[in-house]
Amino acid sequence: MNDGPANDGKVPKKERMRFVSAEQVAQRAGVSRSAVSRTFTPGASVAPATREKVLRAAEELGYHVNDLARGVLANQSRLVGIVATRPEVGFRAHLAAALAKSLIRRGSIPILVNTGQTEEELLAAQKMLIGHRAEAIIILSGSPPASFLELAQRNGQPLVVIGRSEPDADHVRAGNTEASRKAATAFYDSGRRRLAVIGSNSGTPAIVERENAFLATAETLGASVTVAPGGDSDYDGGVTAGRALFSQTIKPDAVFCANDQIAFGLMDVVRLEAGLRIPEEVAVIGFDDVPESAWLSYQLTTFRQDPLIMAQRAVALMERRLENPDSPPAYERVIPELVIRRSFQP
Amino acid sequence: MNDGPANDGKVPKKERMRFVSAEQVAQRAGVSRSAVSRTFTPGASVAPATREKVLRAAEELGYHVNDLARGVLANQSRLVGIVATRPEVGFRAHLAAALAKSLIRRGSIPILVNTGQTEEELLAAQKMLIGHRAEAIIILSGSPPASFLELAQRNGQPLVVIGRSEPDADHVRAGNTEASRKAATAFYDSGRRRLAVIGSNSGTPAIVERENAFLATAETLGASVTVAPGGDSDYDGGVTAGRALFSQTIKPDAVFCANDQIAFGLMDVVRLEAGLRIPEEVAVIGFDDVPESAWLSYQLTTFRQDPLIMAQRAVALMERRLENPDSPPAYERVIPELVIRRSFQP
Repeated sequence: MNDGPANDGKVPKKERMRFVSAEQVAQRAGVSRSAVSRTFTPGASVAPATREKVLRAAEELGYHVNDLARGVLANQSRLVGIVATRPEVGFRAHLAAALAKSLIRRGSIPILVNTGQTEEELLAAQKMLIGHRAEAIIILSGSPPASFLELAQRNGQPLVVIGRSEPDADHVRAGNTEASRKAATAFYDSGRRRLAVIGSNSGTPAIVERENAFLATAETLGASVTVAPGGDSDYDGGVTAGRALFSQTIKPDAVFCANDQIAFGLMDVVRLEAGLRIPEEVAVIGFDDVPESAWLSYQLTTFRQDPLIMAQRAVALMERRLENPDSPPAYERVIPELVIRRSFQP
Repeated sequence: MNDGPANDGKVPKKERMRFVSAEQVAQRAGVSRSAVSRTFTPGASVAPATREKVLRAAEELGYHVNDLARGVLANQSRLVGIVATRPEVGFRAHLAAALAKSLIRRGSIPILVNTGQTEEELLAAQKMLIGHRAEAIIILSGSPPASFLELAQRNGQPLVVIGRSEPDADHVRAGNTEASRKAATAFYDSGRRRLAVIGSNSGTPAIVERENAFLATAETLGASVTVAPGGDSDYDGGVTAGRALFSQTIKPDAVFCANDQIAFGLMDVVRLEAGLRIPEEVAVIGFDDVPESAWLSYQLTTFRQDPLIMAQRAVALMERRLENPDSPPAYERVIPELVIRRSFQP
């Protein structure tokens, strides 16, 4: 620190030097406070020599213009909330990281709100984001309650939901239904007739959509489908469901898993506990194409969702909403592509 | 929206209603603007009946006090930057999520800065965080350059580094050296004499510390150690190193991997490509204890780092620094515990 402590050696907290100020820059450069302000305001007029002095002083002191204060003047910050439950798990981790990258690239500040699934926790997160006048909120998981949508609307705060249909909000849809239909049809066409599907009891809309579409298609085709008892939509959920499915007398010969994490758990049970070969005796399809799908132990055939593309689409929806606050809810659609690996070859 | 558009149907952007304001609350409640302000200022005096009216109006409108403006008055926001390279991979994903949770719990706003590893990208992230008067910065990966530390210091912005020794900054140390010594000794005591260690060519200080301590201990004990050619510190790096190690005539009988992701790649090569049994023919120890370590396919013996404990320690260091800006750099030490699973049993 440049300034020594006050006489008694104790500096009252509010007088402590924090963040280099425009005043300090003005003093060092030997110019007025307003000259500093004009130097950092795009389009403002300032003499080249003055500007030069200000920039040099700012560089020397480590000053950066107060973007926070600019946000207050505009009654809107550049903060964008990324709201997710368990953002460290599976595809969500990749989506959150991709969103952070896409937002930083356009000059926004991504806030990672790691929240639980209760309505109370979600609303607390939202209040924090409204309190900080966040530019927008992007929701990665759970289904926001009606009160959430309403509060955002009242404050004119754009809200984008990723991964499913959400008629009352801007959203990025994954083609859950199309993909799940394709999975059932591909299993059927390869001669498999004892199908199973593993979803979860989380009630996550994307997972439910996948489960239902697979079921409906298989029934139309005339294949039998076992619905595995729901667990969490993660590795442990796949293990639990796998143990239930493969302890039965009649075992499935093809399993569709609502996400890759579930598929890894299922595959481990099939090979290491039930002693069956994949894909010869049991074919498996997952959903997401997280990097672990390509690991030698799994080689999972799965529907690819590209986190960067989904993030970019979400940011585009957010920008559209900021431009046109009153337009009706819009959506972007991303169709997952089936990536063929060893666990099932159509 | 409550307000209709202006006469010509086009509302100039700056007049668009955004965020419910204190003025709107005052109007609805039929009180003064200052009464609204006092209601939301802790300790300020306001008549109970007035307070009641204000709170009801705020609730009805969806108003939340402007925390951003409060931050500007204090020249400091409650934003805290979490700076990480590839925050979606392995242990970092868990650490970032745990930090977000710990920060939110104390009323801070976690910003996820997903940055590359170049000094330029790091400094750009830092400028953004200074511009927004962030309360502090927590760094998860890479080694911040001297210019980074200096800029933070000039602005009185606390900086906490996680995962390694960083003498010039507050940091949370993992006991890398102790753990790596323990790994070498345990391999040796179990009768293994052809040791190998897989680090990476990333130069990450934590990885280098682990590699060096393992090497030094093994040499002291008199065991031979092969250092696998460096790759990335992830699954693919483990695969590459594994292929190099197990294509040699003399194959290692025990491999220490600088993190779990590397270990998974190595294990897959050992079993699926080299056709060797783990742990009978090759013992493996990893580092981190990410959830995948417990998966049935891996059952990896590894050093556990608890992301929540590390996050809490980092937040504690940050709080200490905010209280005592001028105290010398401090650190917290976390000793990883060896979790025994199937890949090696001492």
